Amino acid sequence: MTQIKKYPQGPLLSKINSPADLRKLKKNQLSQVSDEVRKYIVDVVSEKGGHFGASLGVVELTVALHYVFNTPYDQLVWDVGHQAYGHKILTGRKNQFPTNRIKGGLSGFPKRSESVYDTFGVGHSSTSISAALGMAVASERNGEKDKQHIAVIGDGSMTAGIAFEALNHAGAEHSNLLVILNDNCMSIDPAVGALKEYLTDISTSKTYNKARNKIWKILGKVSRFGPNAQAIARKVEGAVKTTLLGESNYFESLNFRYFGPIDGHDAKHVAEVLKDLKSIPGPKILHCLTQKGKGYSPAEKGDTTTWHAPGVFNKETGEITKTKKKQSPPKYQDVFGETIIELAKENENIVGVSPAMLTGSSLNKMMEQMPTRTFDVGIAEQHAVTFSAGMATQGKIPFCNIYSSFMQRAYDQVIHDVALQNLNVVFCLDRGGVVGADGATHHGVYDIAFFRCIPNMTVSSPMNEEELRNLMYTAQLPNKGPFSIRYPRGKGVMLDWETLFKEIKVGKGREVKKGNDIAILSLGHPGNFVVKAQEQFEKEGLSIAHYDMRFAKPLDEVLLHKIFAKFDNIITIEDGCLQGGFGSAILEFMSNNNYKLSVKRLGIPDQFVHHGTQEELQKDCFYDSESIIKTVHEILAENSVSQVS
Amino acid sequence: MTQIKKYPQGPLLSKINSPADLRKLKKNQLSQVSDEVRKYIVDVVSEKGGHFGASLGVVELTVALHYVFNTPYDQLVWDVGHQAYGHKILTGRKNQFPTNRIKGGLSGFPKRSESVYDTFGVGHSSTSISAALGMAVASERNGEKDKQHIAVIGDGSMTAGIAFEALNHAGAEHSNLLVILNDNCMSIDPAVGALKEYLTDISTSKTYNKARNKIWKILGKVSRFGPNAQAIARKVEGAVKTTLLGESNYFESLNFRYFGPIDGHDAKHVAEVLKDLKSIPGPKILHCLTQKGKGYSPAEKGDTTTWHAPGVFNKETGEITKTKKKQSPPKYQDVFGETIIELAKENENIVGVSPAMLTGSSLNKMMEQMPTRTFDVGIAEQHAVTFSAGMATQGKIPFCNIYSSFMQRAYDQVIHDVALQNLNVVFCLDRGGVVGADGATHHGVYDIAFFRCIPNMTVSSPMNEEELRNLMYTAQLPNKGPFSIRYPRGKGVMLDWETLFKEIKVGKGREVKKGNDIAILSLGHPGNFVVKAQEQFEKEGLSIAHYDMRFAKPLDEVLLHKIFAKFDNIITIEDGCLQGGFGSAILEFMSNNNYKLSVKRLGIPDQFVHHGTQEELQKDCFYDSESIIKTVHEILAENSVSQVS
Repeated sequence: MTQIKKYPQGPLLSKINSPADLRKLKKNQLSQVSDEVRKYIVDVVSEKGGHFGASLGVVELTVALHYVFNTPYDQLVWDVGHQAYGHKILTGRKNQFPTNRIKGGLSGFPKRSESVYDTFGVGHSSTSISAALGMAVASERNGEKDKQHIAVIGDGSMTAGIAFEALNHAGAEHSNLLVILNDNCMSIDPAVGALKEYLTDISTSKTYNKARNKIWKILGKVSRFGPNAQAIARKVEGAVKTTLLGESNYFESLNFRYFGPIDGHDAKHVAEVLKDLKSIPGPKILHCLTQKGKGYSPAEKGDTTTWHAPGVFNKETGEITKTKKKQSPPKYQDVFGETIIELAKENENIVGVSPAMLTGSSLNKMMEQMPTRTFDVGIAEQHAVTFSAGMATQGKIPFCNIYSSFMQRAYDQVIHDVALQNLNVVFCLDRGGVVGADGATHHGVYDIAFFRCIPNMTVSSPMNEEELRNLMYTAQLPNKGPFSIRYPRGKGVMLDWETLFKEIKVGKGREVKKGNDIAILSLGHPGNFVVKAQEQFEKEGLSIAHYDMRFAKPLDEVLLHKIFAKFDNIITIEDGCLQGGFGSAILEFMSNNNYKLSVKRLGIPDQFVHHGTQEELQKDCFYDSESIIKTVHEILAENSVSQVS
Repeated sequence: MTQIKKYPQGPLLSKINSPADLRKLKKNQLSQVSDEVRKYIVDVVSEKGGHFGASLGVVELTVALHYVFNTPYDQLVWDVGHQAYGHKILTGRKNQFPTNRIKGGLSGFPKRSESVYDTFGVGHSSTSISAALGMAVASERNGEKDKQHIAVIGDGSMTAGIAFEALNHAGAEHSNLLVILNDNCMSIDPAVGALKEYLTDISTSKTYNKARNKIWKILGKVSRFGPNAQAIARKVEGAVKTTLLGESNYFESLNFRYFGPIDGHDAKHVAEVLKDLKSIPGPKILHCLTQKGKGYSPAEKGDTTTWHAPGVFNKETGEITKTKKKQSPPKYQDVFGETIIELAKENENIVGVSPAMLTGSSLNKMMEQMPTRTFDVGIAEQHAVTFSAGMATQGKIPFCNIYSSFMQRAYDQVIHDVALQNLNVVFCLDRGGVVGADGATHHGVYDIAFFRCIPNMTVSSPMNEEELRNLMYTAQLPNKGPFSIRYPRGKGVMLDWETLFKEIKVGKGREVKKGNDIAILSLGHPGNFVVKAQEQFEKEGLSIAHYDMRFAKPLDEVLLHKIFAKFDNIITIEDGCLQGGFGSAILEFMSNNNYKLSVKRLGIPDQFVHHGTQEELQKDCFYDSESIIKTVHEILAENSVSQVS
């Protein structure tokens, strides 16, 4: 790696190489440290890209946490982790921070292998309370009674079921656990659901402040009715607070002691409150109000979804740098977003469902145009799927759009609620394959394998925009049952992509190119890597057949019999795991039909793939165009050797 | 099927062939109908077996629901569904009810293909609110404004994350949804968690009743301070109710209107309340107190876990019929339950974790002996896994016991929180393979396929009790990472099973029997089907080799190379899905190493398997001993034909 660029560090930050250095400062210097950390984040991220709004929102909280708690002995767990840039900067990684999200550099998320301060690897939301509770219970059993365990979780992440499961357990366990609710009223898209409305009520209740004084006066008079009445008056006082704070307290009903809301941008005050909370035993929650993008004016004023991860931008003007607009193919997600609207205009039963990824999946356009037919259910993949199943029983055709790696969250619901009942729900799995800078937690690796084993499920993947449109069109035709369509992050390959709809026969592949020497069977976008490799093969005079199989299930057995009758060597390629994936489906076909060919399977090997650009990772995983060329050459070399020998 | 036995039906029940007949009755006859339904359930289940306590607990509720609501137009969704026997009896299936859970007979759970009254197939818990909300939203969009949507869910099921996700969405959606909380303070084992404690507080609050009268008096006096004070007094009144009912109302904080608690065994009153609730729009919850086993004295007085599904019993005495005690091998679950205690005595880091299946997994024994090291986290598989991961970061070695089919609920947590961080969590998957009478929702079919594609994960399955013990012993040795051990429902094969512990080298198979003609590779318990088939092979003079591979991942490649060098024909057998399972792992090995043998894979085919005995289903799926014999004969016949031709 080339020399890491140095960015200016403020006078306090320049002396902080670990939280121990931070703790040498006076409480009234915390505000300045926060400003310097914030400036450092703006300087680096504006040039290097990455998550942005979330980290700016928790700078003061981060400073206060490392100031008050004895990290890394005390266990600090960040939920999701895209807000942990300040944490990385304060825990010995400030000079490496410019390598954030670059291959070989820092991960964009906390990662145990990167630092002892990263107590629990994250990326997917809502795991922090479970993990911190596990730590707290283990510490208690280990006799480390003084150890503190803190989970920092956003209001958006609170909507996921696992967070509730953890609260419910923690409330009964009485372990030493502090949950900090970082409430900025956002996940990536604005947070939704009843809990959000409730939190907003607590935070903004003018009724509470206005009514309080009047009631206190009346209760003073009630007290004159004797000591019994006084005791009751005290109870009533608490009750009034509870009622006016939105009728009730969700967290206290789960046996958490609730504190707040407090201003999350007053570092000194946050530190004082945290210090007080250290001495309070049992499960407790501190409700902290913060603002995404805090302290950087364009992000504060602008659209928070845009500033979640804006890419490179001019830090003076706030202008987001666009890559020059030469005409280029659209993103797959946008083809999905436009196509579902076209289909929904024709078929009134189509509805769209997203678990808090409206913008990321481009379903936001449908939400604008058809708000009663588009559902953002919050970070709640399990519910998204079963809710879709419920709608399907009433004749709706839900297009449930979930990133491949988040689909792992709703696996049982797909099997038990959709496939077993053979309901017509269309699963659009965005971000299939390696996703790039987000790294291991976000790659969509396993879906072909874990969907292929589910009865009734159609597993498809388009090679380009036209195919995506046609698969979507096909999936909403009558009686198609559970139907999955997976496509990658990023751009397709077609300039004129607004093609007319054509039904694709389920389980029907297509011949992309005839050939005689070797047959390549591709699934999805990597078919384009084959097309590129063909340029080289043509130069070399090689005759390589290419079939875009479209479906990992059901397989096009007619086509496969033709291919297996003709060729001795087959290559399969997919952007998914090699264990149990598309290539294995081909091996199963081969075995079932007693063919005895040589098959080389290209795809993601049996190891976790870390961050880098998509191109770097495809090459590392050995399924880019070059790897295809190499594989063909190897097969031909082996064959010529075996012919000679 | 033979003639279905007729059981006596009471005078009212004998005339009810559908809910329409029920609705002809007078309100004050509902109690009698309930008694007759209850008696019918006792008569049949005492002779035929099945779930018991749960159905008795909701008889009055079931009668009231079908009396008040216009089923099947109104959509009634039962959570889990083991409590729906009364529902089946009242909806045209009373004469078929004695075929319950028998192959070809009624399913033990609601099932869409069985009846229009079964609006949503269930089996796994906590899906009902999501499904009913989906229906409610769809009905609204379909213009069916009068349609009612009711989810009946137990307090145990409320602890699962998906139920919270659904409440959170429903509270913001304002659809016409009634959730009935059937509160019997139980899942199968007693319900746990903060929410349960909270519900108990509401239901038993004597403080509330005692304090109420006093406060009402005081508030009367407050009202004299003028109209402003009166308005405040009304607010205070609500607040007092809220406070005394356990400080706050969980459901109201999620924007549900909360009603109750009411006595769920007063059919007339329940019917009246349900009628009132029909006219209240938006999301609402009715808290109904019921008793598991209600109306059958031995079940009322006895242990509710025992009476959840007691098997066959004498209905007069309540004596549960035990199959005669000839000496027989133990259940795998009991071997697990005893072995974890032995291991935990030696290794202080071992802890046990179960999501509400303590008894079913036999972890209850550890809970008795080591209560601080055993965790029942409630119906919360996701949390169970990430909580285990958190403990593992602090040096604990959690044995997280989850039934194979429930493991589907925590798939993302296994990948993202355990495997990616290579934490030493041991997953003990009970109920792997076909489970019998519980049917399609409960078979453990996919785990080998969906675990095998996860990097770092060891996937193992013991052939007998000794192997289970040794795999458990091995899994807790240092640095084993994520380690899964799957075993079936029911009994093993060894009488003297308390063997000494021996480490098994990870990824090492074993030769059960030498042979020359064909090699059979088995994974797990079905290896015993091979042993049985060998009796026949020996009679026929066939020389069939048998290898117990133990691990689907990593494979014993040294052994496989030996086998593949020697044999032309291989049979693989597993009690899991054929798509991507153990057999496919063998095909992948074969392809990677360019072997060209014939492989026949036996296992569960690509379709949902319904209920029946385990033996019936293994035969249907073609992997019992007979099927193995047939397969061997077929291979030999093919080979002799090809030798001739």
